[in-house]
Amino acid sequence: MPAIDLPFDAIEYARRLSLVRAEMDARGLHALFVTDPSNQAWLTGYDGWSFYVHQGVIVLPDDDPIWWGRNQDTNGALRTVWMGQNSVFGYADHYVQAVDLHPMQDLADRLKGLGLETGMIGVETDNYYYSAKAHIVLAGSLPGVQLVDATALVNWQRCIKSAPELAYMRNAAKISERIIDGLLERVEPGVPKNEIVAEIYRDALRGVEGVWGDYPAIVPLLPSGADAAAPHLTWDGRPFASGEATFFEISGCYRRYHAPLCRTLFLGEPPDFLKRAEAALVEGLEAGLDKARAGNRACDVANALAAPLERAGIERGARCGYPIGLSYPPDWGERTISLRAEDESVLEPDMTFHFMPGLWMQDWGLEITESIRIRADGPAETFCNRPRQMFVKP
Amino acid sequence: MPAIDLPFDAIEYARRLSLVRAEMDARGLHALFVTDPSNQAWLTGYDGWSFYVHQGVIVLPDDDPIWWGRNQDTNGALRTVWMGQNSVFGYADHYVQAVDLHPMQDLADRLKGLGLETGMIGVETDNYYYSAKAHIVLAGSLPGVQLVDATALVNWQRCIKSAPELAYMRNAAKISERIIDGLLERVEPGVPKNEIVAEIYRDALRGVEGVWGDYPAIVPLLPSGADAAAPHLTWDGRPFASGEATFFEISGCYRRYHAPLCRTLFLGEPPDFLKRAEAALVEGLEAGLDKARAGNRACDVANALAAPLERAGIERGARCGYPIGLSYPPDWGERTISLRAEDESVLEPDMTFHFMPGLWMQDWGLEITESIRIRADGPAETFCNRPRQMFVKP
Repeated sequence: MPAIDLPFDAIEYARRLSLVRAEMDARGLHALFVTDPSNQAWLTGYDGWSFYVHQGVIVLPDDDPIWWGRNQDTNGALRTVWMGQNSVFGYADHYVQAVDLHPMQDLADRLKGLGLETGMIGVETDNYYYSAKAHIVLAGSLPGVQLVDATALVNWQRCIKSAPELAYMRNAAKISERIIDGLLERVEPGVPKNEIVAEIYRDALRGVEGVWGDYPAIVPLLPSGADAAAPHLTWDGRPFASGEATFFEISGCYRRYHAPLCRTLFLGEPPDFLKRAEAALVEGLEAGLDKARAGNRACDVANALAAPLERAGIERGARCGYPIGLSYPPDWGERTISLRAEDESVLEPDMTFHFMPGLWMQDWGLEITESIRIRADGPAETFCNRPRQMFVKP
Repeated sequence: MPAIDLPFDAIEYARRLSLVRAEMDARGLHALFVTDPSNQAWLTGYDGWSFYVHQGVIVLPDDDPIWWGRNQDTNGALRTVWMGQNSVFGYADHYVQAVDLHPMQDLADRLKGLGLETGMIGVETDNYYYSAKAHIVLAGSLPGVQLVDATALVNWQRCIKSAPELAYMRNAAKISERIIDGLLERVEPGVPKNEIVAEIYRDALRGVEGVWGDYPAIVPLLPSGADAAAPHLTWDGRPFASGEATFFEISGCYRRYHAPLCRTLFLGEPPDFLKRAEAALVEGLEAGLDKARAGNRACDVANALAAPLERAGIERGARCGYPIGLSYPPDWGERTISLRAEDESVLEPDMTFHFMPGLWMQDWGLEITESIRIRADGPAETFCNRPRQMFVKP
C-alpha cells in the first residue's frame, strides 16, 4: 500500500463521520451518496482533480465510507483516503462520457451489492457535480430505493471548525496576506494584468515559510474602473491605468483550506464618491465584525453592515458573506448560511465566514473584505491582518 | 454600454448559432437551455467565474440568445456577450443558495414570459453545472413543457474548429511549449513541487510574445514515482527525488482555448522497464498520429496506439484522447468523441483532440501526449513541437 500523507488524524475523521451519521439517522437514511468534492475530501481525505467525471463517497451507518469513481482514479484514492483498499470501488472506463452507458448504472450495482436494494438513500441533488442525468439514471436503476434530497447535509456539519482546521485556515491566511502585499507593491499604470496574476499565483503557490501553496477554488478576480461593477470578471492582457480602482479578490489555500481576502487599489487620486463609499464600507465592516458574535444571527451582521451604507446612499443587492473552509472549484463557499437579512441562523463559536460586502454599482466597484472566525466571546477574529481600506498609489 | 472585447466576430457567432439551431430544429426543440460554461461562452462570449451559481443561456429559434444568471453577474454579461442588454436577464440575490427558493423558479417565469409555457425545451442533463435539483424544480415549475435531454447537443457543434479558433489554440500551444521548457530546466532533486508549480503558473499566465495567458481548465498534474500510477494527483510541498519519473500534465490557455501537452521527466538513470514502455508508447503515438486522418474513425487511432503497447505487455484500461478547444473548469475536454475502441465517430478536418495515451500502471506512470488537428489530407498536425520522449536528467 502506498504511503499516505493524510491532512488530519483518525480522531478528526471519526468526528466528522459521526456528525454526518447522526444527521443521516435523524432523517432515516440508510446510506448517503456524496458527490460534492469538498464533502468527499472532508469525509475521506480524497484529493485529486478528477471531479470532472462522476464519482462520490457512499456513507454507510455502520461501516467505513466507500470511495467510488473511475477505475484509473482508484490509484489516487488509495493514495489519499484513510479507508482501506476494500473501501475503494472503481468503474470501467467505457462508462466515461459514453452515450449509451452511464457510470450511475455501475453505482446502482454497487449499492445493490451492499444490500441497498430498498430503503432511503440521500443524494446531494443541488451540490456540485450531481447532474440531472446522474439522478435520473440512478433512480431508474434502483427502483426499490427512495432517493431523498440531502443537499448540503454534509456541508452543514462542516460549519464549526476543529482546531486543526483553523490552523490550516491560518496558514492560508498568511498566504492571502502575502498575495495582497505583493500585488500592492507591483501594480502600476502600464503593467499588464496577466503579469500581475502571474505573480499572484507565484506567491500563492510558493506559500510562506513552512507552508506550501495549493490552488484556490476560485481564480483571482481583478476588474478595474467601470468593469469593477462586475464581481466575477477575471483578467486579460490589458495594462492597469491611472485614474482607476481595481479590486483584487484572492485567497491563499493550504491543503484545500481557504481564507479569502479582498482589497481595492486606486491608481492616482480617487474621486470623492469613492472615498465616501470606502468610509461607509469600512464603518459597515466594523459594525458587522462587532455583531459577528456567538449567539447573534447571520442577519444581525448583514443589518449592521447595511446601516452605514444606506446612510451613504449605497444599496447593496446581494448577501454579504458565506461560510468558508475546505473547498474545490468552482466555489470556496460552503453553501449553507448566508449573511443576509433573510437568514436567521445563529452564529456559533468557530464558525468561519468570508465577510464579503462587495460593492458592485452601475459603473464602479469596491471590495474590502475579511475572513473571520466567530469567537466564544467578543467580536469576530479576522484571519488576516491588513489595513481595512482602499489603497491609493498616487 | 461598456466597451466589449469579444474574442470573435459576428460572423463566427452567427455560424455557431446556426449550427445549434439546425440541430434544435432537427430535434423539434422550441428552445434550448445551456448551462455548460464552455457552451455558454462559445455561443455568446460570456466570460466570468460565476458558474458556481445557477446560470445559463436560452437559445431561441428566431431571436438572439438570452444570458440568464444572478443579478450581480448581469454586469459581467453586459461586458462580455455580443447580444444587447435586452438579452441579459438577472435573478434576485435571495434565490442564491437558499433553502426554500430556487433560481430555476425565476428561469421558469422567464421562459413563460417568452411564450414557452408549452412545447419542448432541451436541457443539458449531463453537462456541468445542471444539477438534479435544478432539473426537478424547472420541470415542476413548467408543467406544460416537455424537458428533453439535450446533453452535449452544443458540444457536438464545437467539434470542427474555425480558423480563428485554431489560431487561438496555436497561441495556447506556444504557452504549453514554454511551460514544458521551463519545468524541464527547473526540476531538480530537492526542489519542492509547489515551487515548480509556482513557475508553471507564472509561465502560463505571462504567456509568450503578444499572447497573454489565461487560467487552464485543469490545474497542473505532476505525480512522481509510484504516485504517477494515479492520473489526477496535483502537488504538495515535498521535493522531487532522484530515481523517480514525474509526468507533467499541463496546458497553456489563450482566451479559454487550450492545447494540453504532457511530458515525463526522469531524474537519474531510468530503469529498463520504463525505457521499454517509453519506446512502445512513442511507437504507439506515432502510429496513432498516422491514423488520425480525415475519414478514419476514432477507434482507428486507439487501435493503432494499442498494438505496440500490447506487444510490450502494456494494457491500458482507458480511452486515449478526447476533443479539445474552449473550456472552463472542471474539464478541458469537450465530452463528445472519445478515442477508444468502442467509438466509431468519423474524423473530419479541423477536429482537434488531446491524443492522451497516459500509462497509469500499478506502481508507475508515464505520460507523453500531443494536442492534434485533423488535416484535410495526411496524418494529424501536432499543435506543439517538442521531442516526443521521456526526458532524463542524470
